[in-house]
Amino acid sequence: MNTIKDFNEVVDRLKAAGICRRVAVVSPRDKATIKAVRQAAQEGFIDPVTLDDDNPKLAAEKAVSLAQNGEVDMIMKGLVPSEILLKAIIRYKGGLLPDGNMLTHTACASFSEYHKLLFYTDAAVIPFPTHEQRVRQVGYMVALCHAMGIEEPRISLIHCSEEVDERHFPYTAGYREIVQMAKQGQFGKCVVDGPLDLKTSCSAESLKVKGIVSPINGEADALIFPNIESGNVFHKTITLFNGAKLASLLQGARVPVVMTSRADAPETKYYSLAIAAALGTVNE
Amino acid sequence: MNTIKDFNEVVDRLKAAGICRRVAVVSPRDKATIKAVRQAAQEGFIDPVTLDDDNPKLAAEKAVSLAQNGEVDMIMKGLVPSEILLKAIIRYKGGLLPDGNMLTHTACASFSEYHKLLFYTDAAVIPFPTHEQRVRQVGYMVALCHAMGIEEPRISLIHCSEEVDERHFPYTAGYREIVQMAKQGQFGKCVVDGPLDLKTSCSAESLKVKGIVSPINGEADALIFPNIESGNVFHKTITLFNGAKLASLLQGARVPVVMTSRADAPETKYYSLAIAAALGTVNE
Repeated sequence: MNTIKDFNEVVDRLKAAGICRRVAVVSPRDKATIKAVRQAAQEGFIDPVTLDDDNPKLAAEKAVSLAQNGEVDMIMKGLVPSEILLKAIIRYKGGLLPDGNMLTHTACASFSEYHKLLFYTDAAVIPFPTHEQRVRQVGYMVALCHAMGIEEPRISLIHCSEEVDERHFPYTAGYREIVQMAKQGQFGKCVVDGPLDLKTSCSAESLKVKGIVSPINGEADALIFPNIESGNVFHKTITLFNGAKLASLLQGARVPVVMTSRADAPETKYYSLAIAAALGTVNE
Repeated sequence: MNTIKDFNEVVDRLKAAGICRRVAVVSPRDKATIKAVRQAAQEGFIDPVTLDDDNPKLAAEKAVSLAQNGEVDMIMKGLVPSEILLKAIIRYKGGLLPDGNMLTHTACASFSEYHKLLFYTDAAVIPFPTHEQRVRQVGYMVALCHAMGIEEPRISLIHCSEEVDERHFPYTAGYREIVQMAKQGQFGKCVVDGPLDLKTSCSAESLKVKGIVSPINGEADALIFPNIESGNVFHKTITLFNGAKLASLLQGARVPVVMTSRADAPETKYYSLAIAAALGTVNE
């Protein structure tokens, strides 16, 4: 399978593969979390372990312990402040971050104006990724796409144009390095190109109009944004104006972390569980 | 009139007001420019002055001269490299920038998922506006909205969240200052709020879900983006995925400058002429 049309296909694939992940659910005290967990368990791709405590810090630390001991494959945030869960993931008894890893936010959107799932990072966690952080983001993204069954994901490094402009945008020089690293096989099987803008990443027609050739050919599976604001604007524009369905997770820890926000619909939490279940513990 | 539904309304208003601007058209050698200029002249809101020369630099300098002498009200780029026209505007015999002014890109979008025209800056010219540049952007935006007949424009200062975070995002502290300046009347009649994200700027429902109160109330007329990448991603996302119709101009010079790109449709150039004609020479 080389593209995934929508989230239903993700769930179908999990079921066909007989995947069932053990999930530490931290303080499932809100309806949306309870509903999403119940649905995912009914579909059979997760086996939830409920961790509830009037002190949410203790529940978060218990989840981290279980992940450290290999007793769960994923963590999901319920009604607990993100800071508390993040602190436990980073620090509690050595935390869950392998040396040199970092937490980054990866989202996945499904909307009718694009013909397949579109992954992107980072709309929510790292404000201004350094070159080293961006290299890791690309690595995490390739791992996620591979886990989703996309054999050779097309990953676009986003900028406002297709020109490297080291003076005004030093990261565009970094993009060229990342493209070279990808060609040398450093990320496994994938196609990475950039700088490309949003349109030349996602539209073969736009590429043609600009007279540009890109191996992505307007068929990006994933977008790497230069900073959190551009990622966040994309995230919110397609949600508000295209009714995009979303899933998201934190990558970089030993286990994927589903950390949607309180305002998110049960559907978003459910799809996030599906994406995280597909990823499994590949970052270990 | 307090909102403008679409570009047709802009043209109707120009015609009703009997506005006709003299436009220096620099090297109209491409079909899209010729078509847009002809249509705008037929509708009666521009009176074109064609400046053509095998040396485009001379045509650009002639346009700047005419604007300096008050013989034209606007400049439009045809088939001439942007750098050449910009250089003339900035430097030729003192150029066209009043002291302390800067050139910034302002765009205007019309798409069915939003109920009125949506203005935004800066998707194309200033990479990372300083606080002082942002203050000017807000001033230019208010002037444009007023010229369009929007009596009290609602202007949103975009960020990924609604929190001022001086440590990670120093510009959000600047946002707070700009909100205060607006309250003190520094920009004339307008409502400025921020930081707000894209959704809480453009959706009352999103505001409500987040439990936030904003005088913009999800009804932004204009968005000020923190940097060029976020503005550019917005620009290209709504074009690609919402089929947005666009107009754009450069503000900051003594006369508005229509500087669309070669790939833009005649329609975009035509709407840009209409927006620029509505603005007139208010920056003088």
